[in-house]
Amino acid sequence: MTDKPLYIRVADSDNVAIVVNPGGLPAGTRFESGLVLKEHVPQGHKVALEDLAEKAAVVRYGQILGYTTRPIARGGWINETMIHLPSAPGFDDLPLATAPTLAQPPLEGYGFEGFRNADGSAGTKNLLGISTSVQCVAGVVDHAVKRIKDELLPRFPNVDDVVALNHAYGCGVAINAPDAVIPIRTLQNLVLNPNLGGAVMVVALGCEKLQPERLLPTTAITEAFDDSSIVRLQDEAHQGFGDMVASIMAMAEKRLSVLNKRQRVHCPASDLVVGLQCGGSDAFSGVTANPAVGYAADLLVRAGATVMFSEVTEVRDAIHLLTPRAATEEVARALIREMDWYDRYLAGGSADRSANPSPGNKKGGLSNVVEKALGSIAKSGTSPIVGVLSPGERVDRKGLIYAATPASDFVCGTLQLASGMNIEVFTTGRGTPYGLAMAPVIKVATRTSLAQQWHDLMDLDAGRIATGTATIEEVGWELFRLILEVASGRKKTWADNWGLHNALTLFNPAPIT
Amino acid sequence: MTDKPLYIRVADSDNVAIVVNPGGLPAGTRFESGLVLKEHVPQGHKVALEDLAEKAAVVRYGQILGYTTRPIARGGWINETMIHLPSAPGFDDLPLATAPTLAQPPLEGYGFEGFRNADGSAGTKNLLGISTSVQCVAGVVDHAVKRIKDELLPRFPNVDDVVALNHAYGCGVAINAPDAVIPIRTLQNLVLNPNLGGAVMVVALGCEKLQPERLLPTTAITEAFDDSSIVRLQDEAHQGFGDMVASIMAMAEKRLSVLNKRQRVHCPASDLVVGLQCGGSDAFSGVTANPAVGYAADLLVRAGATVMFSEVTEVRDAIHLLTPRAATEEVARALIREMDWYDRYLAGGSADRSANPSPGNKKGGLSNVVEKALGSIAKSGTSPIVGVLSPGERVDRKGLIYAATPASDFVCGTLQLASGMNIEVFTTGRGTPYGLAMAPVIKVATRTSLAQQWHDLMDLDAGRIATGTATIEEVGWELFRLILEVASGRKKTWADNWGLHNALTLFNPAPIT
Ligand SMILES: [Ca+2]
Ligand SMILES: [Ca+2]
Ligand SMILES: [Ca+2]
Ligand SMILES: [Ca+2]
Ligand SMILES: [Ca+2]
Repeated sequence: MTDKPLYIRVADSDNVAIVVNPGGLPAGTRFESGLVLKEHVPQGHKVALEDLAEKAAVVRYGQILGYTTRPIARGGWINETMIHLPSAPGFDDLPLATAPTLAQPPLEGYGFEGFRNADGSAGTKNLLGISTSVQCVAGVVDHAVKRIKDELLPRFPNVDDVVALNHAYGCGVAINAPDAVIPIRTLQNLVLNPNLGGAVMVVALGCEKLQPERLLPTTAITEAFDDSSIVRLQDEAHQGFGDMVASIMAMAEKRLSVLNKRQRVHCPASDLVVGLQCGGSDAFSGVTANPAVGYAADLLVRAGATVMFSEVTEVRDAIHLLTPRAATEEVARALIREMDWYDRYLAGGSADRSANPSPGNKKGGLSNVVEKALGSIAKSGTSPIVGVLSPGERVDRKGLIYAATPASDFVCGTLQLASGMNIEVFTTGRGTPYGLAMAPVIKVATRTSLAQQWHDLMDLDAGRIATGTATIEEVGWELFRLILEVASGRKKTWADNWGLHNALTLFNPAPIT
Repeated sequence: MTDKPLYIRVADSDNVAIVVNPGGLPAGTRFESGLVLKEHVPQGHKVALEDLAEKAAVVRYGQILGYTTRPIARGGWINETMIHLPSAPGFDDLPLATAPTLAQPPLEGYGFEGFRNADGSAGTKNLLGISTSVQCVAGVVDHAVKRIKDELLPRFPNVDDVVALNHAYGCGVAINAPDAVIPIRTLQNLVLNPNLGGAVMVVALGCEKLQPERLLPTTAITEAFDDSSIVRLQDEAHQGFGDMVASIMAMAEKRLSVLNKRQRVHCPASDLVVGLQCGGSDAFSGVTANPAVGYAADLLVRAGATVMFSEVTEVRDAIHLLTPRAATEEVARALIREMDWYDRYLAGGSADRSANPSPGNKKGGLSNVVEKALGSIAKSGTSPIVGVLSPGERVDRKGLIYAATPASDFVCGTLQLASGMNIEVFTTGRGTPYGLAMAPVIKVATRTSLAQQWHDLMDLDAGRIATGTATIEEVGWELFRLILEVASGRKKTWADNWGLHNALTLFNPAPIT
């Protein structure tokens, strides 16, 4: 890290830049360009590059973040209280699929060592998944999983772990409400996740609204075994708790035995289904980590992989930059459909997009959701958007996909798992210990200071881009190679090393009863 | 259990009864009354006591459950497909606080051995509670709690357990939406639960919307310690994961040391705050377990305790039987306010009360939500209703309280804990292994066959009432005495014996972002 005062201007038309140095820079600091700070500006926060009158457009990423609430002199600090939030882009006049298709050459010869599944997909882990039809059974399942890990798993060394898919849905819910389709398909698709190897089982109570048969959407899961793949606690055969646990363990053992026969085999990079997300973002997210992830996303798409970006409230204000990139008008209209659904969902609860960003985002220099969105979509790189998924839908094609989800980290992660994600890349500026039990999560720090402080939680330091010690391309390639290493089981993420796994958290926009 | 064919008719005006015998009874069965079954009737299901024409009122508990969809002969089976659901009672002409107050004599001399708290409340357990401001920290907290249990807890034998208050709220939520008040006050009030001894701590991330200071609503929690009661993972002092875990463990150790000095002392029964709930109900719930619970509720109220009944969708259709029992017109209007709020909440999601009962309820003989409600309110006994709580509000008086909650078992339980519950009584007919980490849950079986089959999960058999081997009064007294034993730590519930604890599940009617 150099001591030289540094700022980052993204586009030539920007009239603001962000301060790079840890701790920020004091009043009087002179940059190479001749700019002098009028006051202390915190790290990641914006400084005016020219005198701005009241109601002047604040331009970053070549886009208007909003309009000044007062005059700001060149060298002055611009924080969130000084910018009026503009209206979100309307849906009526958006350009649909108008961007010229960039002919990116295929990237050949890259692959990973994964677990081949009967349905053609590939796992980056070899997990026994124990799904549940209702929260009522969670205590029994947790008890059984602990015993399975202690007593059975040591005998099946090729199985990486046992994962209970506990959740808050299943009963006491308005299961026929229109929006109930979202949590139900999420649970249905979670059991199809490639990292569960097509050998899941379901623990049910018996009297719940969400009957367990609905969680076994294909016969592929059950036909490999001489049982129904369902343990019902209310089964007449269970004389008490001991019998219930024994039933779960016996069914688990059959699946562990089958899963244990699998070995990692070479899989082309096109078998990757990579989810992209950010959380605890700061102003560096959009200039270091997210562009590097975008570069890696382009490499992945060139290598034939599926790449999903998500988080509706964080792309909503940049929708006018995404609809042109849609591969077809139909895809562009699907993007608008998801934004519109979410606008109405928020309005139904008397909320709007201003609920994002969080206080921590603001402390990190992100003034409003426009600035956050412009930085956030950098993760998507430059590929055409070839498909759009509603929350929890399963991916059905290669290339860059928009998977609509809330921005909430664990809700987004859960929905991406349902969509078929076998590995996730997560960028963070403020720092979060986020992790998932069902797929490895590679965490990319936006600042070197975070990467150094959280040395045993951050997997990659993209902050080097801000200080000029690495380029976006270099970090992008590093990340691409790290994804292949982690997917191959040769490198462990820090979250997996410590066993840090967030709860599976379903998105249920319907009422509960 | 006798082999004699038995049915139960609740009120003299009932034109249906339910079959008692396990497995049901075959066509041709003749009862003592002379009634002969026309067809097989399953256990707990209704049989017509007289010939019913099409569109005839089906009467049980002296109330109309609905109207027949076809003629049903005396001795015929009446299931849910044969009854039209009537409209819910309107709110305009309900009798308000009109029932004569029953002068029940005080019940003196009953108490339990509990943990006296500084705020005057009493715990039935002595727990270290580690609250969290956001799901982001859950992985780290789980890791730390495991180490606290393994390395610290053995040194503090008077502390019963360490409980992580993990949840899905805190960030990625519309925190300023009007309905966000519910999850926020729930979390605020959970830390005040009597079983946490006024010595909680909060683990926070740092950048979340729900800042941890908001979870420490009184200074009473913090002033006993020389720290802030908050560990922020993003604290500058933390150099990596090891430091975070060390901070949590150090703060936990100080609290364990204080909690460990406490001893059980004699507390009057008036220190009990008993939550009542049912789940996996069947047709026996309303004639065995719930009336016995109602009898115990009356004893508790006479002994000066606080008793809460809940579950809006399960009392909604019996609201006309509750508003007369309100102690004042103001309380009656508060009951109506909560029913009305929930009607509108369900309608907002295009759902209605017909989402309850569950398929398991129906299989158990409960035809519709009217029948479920009539059986459900039996839990409340006969005392006047002296107060009404909105979801997650804290109880502030003795006597019978209506605490409005969803019927969902774990959501209701979480809200009752926030209201200050220190012990719960839970009735079940289909059977559920439900339990809570923060308070003991006494599970009462509605049928002897369930109590026998789930011998190591059910704490009390109320099914003896159906077969005539015990009266409602006898089982009510047994339950009352069992509550005092469990509250004193002298008897362990089966859920606590096996460590079966459901997830803390917040009620968040507001959108997420
Ligand atoms: Ca994000
Ligand atoms: Ca996120
Ligand atoms: Ca209930
Ligand atoms: Ca319930
Ligand atoms: Ca959990």
